Amino acid sequence: MPVKSGKQYMERINAQTVPCWYKGELITGKRSEHLAFKGLMETQAQLYDMQSNPQLAGQMTYESPADGKPVGLSFLPPTTVDDLRRRREAMSIWSGTHHGFLGRSPDYMNTAIMAFYTAADMLTELSPQYAENLKNYYAFCRDNDITLSHAFIQPHASKISGQMDATEDAIAAKVVEQTQDGLIISGAFMMATQGATSDEIFVYPSPSPAPFDDENPFAFAFAVPNDLPGISLICRDTYAAESRFNYPLSSRYEEMDNIVIFDHVLVPHDRIFFAGNEEMSSRLFSGSNFHIHAGHQVLCRYIAKTEFILGTLQLLTDTLDLASEAHVVEKTARVLAGLESLKAIAVAAEVRAIPDGRGFILPAPQPLMAANILYPKLYPEMIEIMQLLASSGMIMVPQEEEFGSNVAGHLDTYLKGNDQAAHQRTALFRLIWELGAGSFGGRQTQFERFFFGNTITVSNRLYSTYSGDKTYRQRVNEFLTDKNK
Amino acid sequence: MPVKSGKQYMERINAQTVPCWYKGELITGKRSEHLAFKGLMETQAQLYDMQSNPQLAGQMTYESPADGKPVGLSFLPPTTVDDLRRRREAMSIWSGTHHGFLGRSPDYMNTAIMAFYTAADMLTELSPQYAENLKNYYAFCRDNDITLSHAFIQPHASKISGQMDATEDAIAAKVVEQTQDGLIISGAFMMATQGATSDEIFVYPSPSPAPFDDENPFAFAFAVPNDLPGISLICRDTYAAESRFNYPLSSRYEEMDNIVIFDHVLVPHDRIFFAGNEEMSSRLFSGSNFHIHAGHQVLCRYIAKTEFILGTLQLLTDTLDLASEAHVVEKTARVLAGLESLKAIAVAAEVRAIPDGRGFILPAPQPLMAANILYPKLYPEMIEIMQLLASSGMIMVPQEEEFGSNVAGHLDTYLKGNDQAAHQRTALFRLIWELGAGSFGGRQTQFERFFFGNTITVSNRLYSTYSGDKTYRQRVNEFLTDKNK
Amino acid sequence: MPVKSGKQYMERINAQTVPCWYKGELITGKRSEHLAFKGLMETQAQLYDMQSNPQLAGQMTYESPADGKPVGLSFLPPTTVDDLRRRREAMSIWSGTHHGFLGRSPDYMNTAIMAFYTAADMLTELSPQYAENLKNYYAFCRDNDITLSHAFIQPHASKISGQMDATEDAIAAKVVEQTQDGLIISGAFMMATQGATSDEIFVYPSPSPAPFDDENPFAFAFAVPNDLPGISLICRDTYAAESRFNYPLSSRYEEMDNIVIFDHVLVPHDRIFFAGNEEMSSRLFSGSNFHIHAGHQVLCRYIAKTEFILGTLQLLTDTLDLASEAHVVEKTARVLAGLESLKAIAVAAEVRAIPDGRGFILPAPQPLMAANILYPKLYPEMIEIMQLLASSGMIMVPQEEEFGSNVAGHLDTYLKGNDQAAHQRTALFRLIWELGAGSFGGRQTQFERFFFGNTITVSNRLYSTYSGDKTYRQRVNEFLTDKNK
Amino acid sequence: MPVKSGKQYMERINAQTVPCWYKGELITGKRSEHLAFKGLMETQAQLYDMQSNPQLAGQMTYESPADGKPVGLSFLPPTTVDDLRRRREAMSIWSGTHHGFLGRSPDYMNTAIMAFYTAADMLTELSPQYAENLKNYYAFCRDNDITLSHAFIQPHASKISGQMDATEDAIAAKVVEQTQDGLIISGAFMMATQGATSDEIFVYPSPSPAPFDDENPFAFAFAVPNDLPGISLICRDTYAAESRFNYPLSSRYEEMDNIVIFDHVLVPHDRIFFAGNEEMSSRLFSGSNFHIHAGHQVLCRYIAKTEFILGTLQLLTDTLDLASEAHVVEKTARVLAGLESLKAIAVAAEVRAIPDGRGFILPAPQPLMAANILYPKLYPEMIEIMQLLASSGMIMVPQEEEFGSNVAGHLDTYLKGNDQAAHQRTALFRLIWELGAGSFGGRQTQFERFFFGNTITVSNRLYSTYSGDKTYRQRVNEFLTDKNK
Repeated sequence: MPVKSGKQYMERINAQTVPCWYKGELITGKRSEHLAFKGLMETQAQLYDMQSNPQLAGQMTYESPADGKPVGLSFLPPTTVDDLRRRREAMSIWSGTHHGFLGRSPDYMNTAIMAFYTAADMLTELSPQYAENLKNYYAFCRDNDITLSHAFIQPHASKISGQMDATEDAIAAKVVEQTQDGLIISGAFMMATQGATSDEIFVYPSPSPAPFDDENPFAFAFAVPNDLPGISLICRDTYAAESRFNYPLSSRYEEMDNIVIFDHVLVPHDRIFFAGNEEMSSRLFSGSNFHIHAGHQVLCRYIAKTEFILGTLQLLTDTLDLASEAHVVEKTARVLAGLESLKAIAVAAEVRAIPDGRGFILPAPQPLMAANILYPKLYPEMIEIMQLLASSGMIMVPQEEEFGSNVAGHLDTYLKGNDQAAHQRTALFRLIWELGAGSFGGRQTQFERFFFGNTITVSNRLYSTYSGDKTYRQRVNEFLTDKNK
Repeated sequence: MPVKSGKQYMERINAQTVPCWYKGELITGKRSEHLAFKGLMETQAQLYDMQSNPQLAGQMTYESPADGKPVGLSFLPPTTVDDLRRRREAMSIWSGTHHGFLGRSPDYMNTAIMAFYTAADMLTELSPQYAENLKNYYAFCRDNDITLSHAFIQPHASKISGQMDATEDAIAAKVVEQTQDGLIISGAFMMATQGATSDEIFVYPSPSPAPFDDENPFAFAFAVPNDLPGISLICRDTYAAESRFNYPLSSRYEEMDNIVIFDHVLVPHDRIFFAGNEEMSSRLFSGSNFHIHAGHQVLCRYIAKTEFILGTLQLLTDTLDLASEAHVVEKTARVLAGLESLKAIAVAAEVRAIPDGRGFILPAPQPLMAANILYPKLYPEMIEIMQLLASSGMIMVPQEEEFGSNVAGHLDTYLKGNDQAAHQRTALFRLIWELGAGSFGGRQTQFERFFFGNTITVSNRLYSTYSGDKTYRQRVNEFLTDKNK
Repeated sequence: MPVKSGKQYMERINAQTVPCWYKGELITGKRSEHLAFKGLMETQAQLYDMQSNPQLAGQMTYESPADGKPVGLSFLPPTTVDDLRRRREAMSIWSGTHHGFLGRSPDYMNTAIMAFYTAADMLTELSPQYAENLKNYYAFCRDNDITLSHAFIQPHASKISGQMDATEDAIAAKVVEQTQDGLIISGAFMMATQGATSDEIFVYPSPSPAPFDDENPFAFAFAVPNDLPGISLICRDTYAAESRFNYPLSSRYEEMDNIVIFDHVLVPHDRIFFAGNEEMSSRLFSGSNFHIHAGHQVLCRYIAKTEFILGTLQLLTDTLDLASEAHVVEKTARVLAGLESLKAIAVAAEVRAIPDGRGFILPAPQPLMAANILYPKLYPEMIEIMQLLASSGMIMVPQEEEFGSNVAGHLDTYLKGNDQAAHQRTALFRLIWELGAGSFGGRQTQFERFFFGNTITVSNRLYSTYSGDKTYRQRVNEFLTDKNK
Repeated sequence: MPVKSGKQYMERINAQTVPCWYKGELITGKRSEHLAFKGLMETQAQLYDMQSNPQLAGQMTYESPADGKPVGLSFLPPTTVDDLRRRREAMSIWSGTHHGFLGRSPDYMNTAIMAFYTAADMLTELSPQYAENLKNYYAFCRDNDITLSHAFIQPHASKISGQMDATEDAIAAKVVEQTQDGLIISGAFMMATQGATSDEIFVYPSPSPAPFDDENPFAFAFAVPNDLPGISLICRDTYAAESRFNYPLSSRYEEMDNIVIFDHVLVPHDRIFFAGNEEMSSRLFSGSNFHIHAGHQVLCRYIAKTEFILGTLQLLTDTLDLASEAHVVEKTARVLAGLESLKAIAVAAEVRAIPDGRGFILPAPQPLMAANILYPKLYPEMIEIMQLLASSGMIMVPQEEEFGSNVAGHLDTYLKGNDQAAHQRTALFRLIWELGAGSFGGRQTQFERFFFGNTITVSNRLYSTYSGDKTYRQRVNEFLTDKNK
């Protein structure tokens, strides 16, 4: 089974039986027809269809080593710089389609599972079976174009009461029993984005403070179909609406977030990647270079999103006749300088790529980590610039329906731009409102701010790569001691 | 007729006949039962009722000079520092009730019309009748507790094509005809907040670049009932929802914004405050000290809102166990320093009050103008602090209905706080989401940023009060020239 | 002995015998004639003379309770709001003279010793003699117009090796011996500003982590003449220069910083305020309300300095014809808003003053603490604004001597302003350079940033006054739970 | 004559006769022994010597097309990407030696004259002789390793009174007479950095508002030896000092700024690059791609400087035991992210290089322009971070001489670090003081902020490259109109 079509994607999701709660009710009927998922699923279907589009397939797929059939390029474990380029181009085609608004477009988790695959041999040390399980699972995802979500954030309360108290009552997710058929898992995960529109879920709990020992019930990783018995999903309220004119973004790109409950779920042995060993949990995560491979995908998204916002700012500037105002030039130039930095980082990530020591190649880690520090500042700054330029004009924006009503004539007169009809100008301001003041935009800002962790976490990631390097300290010390220099 | 009750307020609004368009449909039925207005109207009714509450009436009313009956204190033209104190206390009771979320709580426009009243005699120069009209209108509002909205922002396109072209086709609002009964007015105004939940509308177009002459059709000010023939209102989409748990703010405080269309509306002569004279338009506005009197009201609102956000941040800090983190201390202290500055400005505004030269007293203008520069920065900064502390936890927040469903048990387990039930903790996060990422909060941020104009406008207001003052220049010049000093 | 004259001030300092090292040499000769102290001592002499100036004496002195002779108002322990006003006015006269550039103008330490005096009775608990010593010392300073410096910052290395190791070798300052005549003290203090131009030094080491016990050798406070045997001072390089034209600030206001070495110094018993008790060290410091009383003095300085910088910015704006540029208006308005906030805080500090529980009155603590958070941000921001407006023009500034040379004619032609001679315009740019790019200005920026501690320390001070206050938390909780509100 | 030695460099400067005024006196004696130039000239001599160092010559020189002798690589007009790489490596060797503190290290002006050379043919249109002059002058500089300065900033007063009034009295630089031997020029230029330590000066006045005509006396460009009759130089005060311990930066890198006076200077015809045509002035400047070629050199300097500051911050962090403090990690990571961005831009500048249409190659303009927007923010931010980490410890720093005096023992005890002797630790803090609070550092900050113009100028440069590009506007417009997308 090679790349799937949009139709297949929809059918698989619609066939799922996992209990999914929305506003206190179980969702029934086809998920693809429910307001909370409809627009997103159409967008994802469009993305999947691109892989079989004859004009794009060459750029978006490669031949599976299993059977030679075309599979998604974002599954490709890179071994050359050219692989990195091909990966980037394929991922950029997708992000250029969703304009960076999908944090979980399929290439994200495809890349994640690929990253873990490159480190699978580390697991042999615990058990050759674990390594085998992970490799098999990766091949399964690749060859079946599996739509994955992932779960790792634990309830806040678990940080306090949880891991230190390894009893049945502990809140943190844990193995509650081992059986012949597998492990029985209970626990909850916050914020599995697109949980309800995925085939499977990859679970890798965040590190636990429990002592390193081989029977740690909180340390494990696995992947299972979404609809195993005992799993249930809880939705937040949707920000989506039907009208693409009124809600141009959420009608297409609203990715539902879910709480995922595991209530005595039996995870079969062949889906366990390791269990019981906290140290392996940390080592595998680090060894997988997850943040680097995923960071490469994320960078493509950053660039597409920045370009989209730039275009929006340019249209806004045109419609308000602001192009020659000094503060507008200065603000826009900050966006441009950010965009140029991201694009330069994309070049450097490939030119300065390094071997990972296991036969694969890594895009240059430090520039990618820098991007993960820059963007959580740049994104909110761009939105603030949009808010400052649009001012109160982005609040009182009428809706599509008014243009079909008796007041349409007044709107046509009073809301027109210099050389824009009122309807077209209003469409732009609906977009600006959704991005700059609506709920969809509010989530996007939080999402970009915390995508790879809070400021201190992403700062630490880059900082630690420099901490052992004495080059610069030494340069200054030589300067200070060489009085004749 | 003295202060009105909440019930009277509702009845008057419900009796209105002005065409009001919402999502392309005319609103029919009682406005107080329509989702877009219901919560707001209940809150406003509560505010009005406080004026007749025996425990508060003493602080919130004074005796009308017309008939000695109790009227709202925000109508009181201050002549002593004690009047300023009484006004502040009354306004603070209201803002302490709506926590600063109502930009158009009744005291705002009450204060505005009072400000114009203090300058009414300036109009005598054009016509004694104009001065009389304005004074009479002020007394009418005061003695009937009229709920006012106001309109002044013109369509963007009017800035280009409008005023220079004084023909029937010009977009800017204008007098299209003068009749025996009054002036016929056509035009549109953006952003009349609470237009659909007011009795009357006060219209004072922003200054026009037309040449100063006595027949300028773009220069006028008047006030009329909302439902005169030819007036119609267009709503944006509402952010309100029914559930006070899910949407704690918008269910109570969502103030609808309106576009107001004037299509050949006959404004009776006794409601015209001046017409035809652009210079008077600027002079009256400036002479009314509108920004100073209103700035005093706004300051009360700033303080209440800051306190509410502070409380929210404190609860958030408690529930996430962040009280001892250095960055949380630092961020919270910025909020505290802002709050202390605002409170100090409230003291200084009274202690340093000055006479207005016409028998009234002005709260100190410069500190109030400073508050109008500080708050558009402080408010977004507080919201950003909230976002940074809450991180992704403010996005995946379940709703009230889940707590009544089969998954309630899981939520009770996994979402509880240290000493908070899950339901209570979720209520807090619903609030944080609405303020920090929801549409209601998005509008609030824009609203505070642009309340009294953009940065350059509010900066100029304070800057110009200093520009003629040579004190500091001279001090530096003396320092530079006195070599023996 | 009442207030002293400038001449007396100089004579006392010149008579000192304490070894004072400058660039590796012992300073000999009159200190008032040494480049490093001359300008500062002239400025301080001018300040002292103002106290006996018949036109100012009424505002700057009060009658000593000891003998009725006039003593400096900054020694007055306030018991009424009017006392606070008198203190503020006297301190503002001084800060209006040195334009806020003297961090250690005499009122600073006068206020400090007054603050400790108000808490002297706390010491009775350890020993009535301690309380007596402190009261006597305060009266001695007041009645002899003693010029004090203070020392409290310990060497960085002491934080690691110091207090935990209570031996002779420990780096932190400590009592090395107790004798019949007093305590023998050894140690070093960083950054005693104006150490070399003071009569006496007040020593109060920063809290030590040693266990609370009555024999803690690191816990003590005392005051002694600068030139006791065993004391020595080390200077940094001076930033001062002779020419008031070339170096308008450092030629007048350069306050030398000193390292103070105590090498087996005998401190007489009657100069010891307490010893051996770490807990008293913390309690007395807190009980003295030092940061609040001193904060009141500092606020006067902040206001004077802000006004001086404002005047400089205004002159710069005039000379560069920038008055109408939007970014200049916006930047200047930020300075104005800061100034208005500080002035409002000065009003609030008095209007909202509170009793200290021991018969004295405290200026309102919270607004003053807010000022201590605001100013370390505002000051560097003002300097940055000055740098941004002056651009490269503040670097290539000729000196006074050029105007007396053969190239004077060229300078007169090419450096003139619109209506300013080249010489006058150059004087302004010398000032701007010194403040915005010279060493004197560099120290001022650091000084204001860390005046009362780093950001987290000053933040904590205000934060902790709010932490027990449940008012705002409760308001939000009531809002959340009262669904019918 | 190929690359020159440091000795030759010194001899040429010492042989100059141009009147150079310092503090009102004419400098006499060897310039290389004058405090204001000594350290800088030693550093420059060191740079020049590197070109003949056998180990570096291969990287730092290429064969002159004139005679095959080695000339400096920064003169190489790039025609391939590999040329860009070679240029970058050579320039980085120099900037790694002066750590980016020399804004006018020889490669800067070498690059500038090379840039103008690439556009020389544009001048043919006015006169083939002009083109010839410029090409010859470039070859002369290259083959004689000429040390150039340049002059372009005119007196502020010239902006008002100057160009509009084309008389002898006008302040702006102008042609006052044309003779058989050349043009007679009078005028003044502010801020010719290193004017007094250069062989020749390149003059290109900033654009004048005079009408475009062929006799515009304000439009010209030329280059002449520094010591032609009628030229004189005026210095600012030097920040340099002898001691490399006390003043580690200014003792090596202090570049003097000069006002350059032209008083009826005869410029020979063969040194005129054009005259009389304002339009050519703008076109040639733009056509030379000066900001792009020079931007490539500047980027090398940015990187070296950032690395040096990073090393300093790391040493500071070590000595103060701050490595694990969250705010230090976060602040340092901002520096790291900035450094990674600059390095990525260096890669992208080559990978995305473009032809200039005249046979040469341009490093990618947009990333380089982005660097010119980023660095004027990054540099002051890094300095602020240094100030915040060092706090008051960077102010009270003793000098070298104290370590040779009687107090040395005390300093050794009290100023030592964890594993650093006091002397070594003090050396670090001298550096931090000079960079973060001294006059040398103050000039560096202004210099970086305004290197290529103020914010609006550098913003405009990048902004204008995007303004005609409709790509992003179109992408958003398609998104808005394609409702089915």
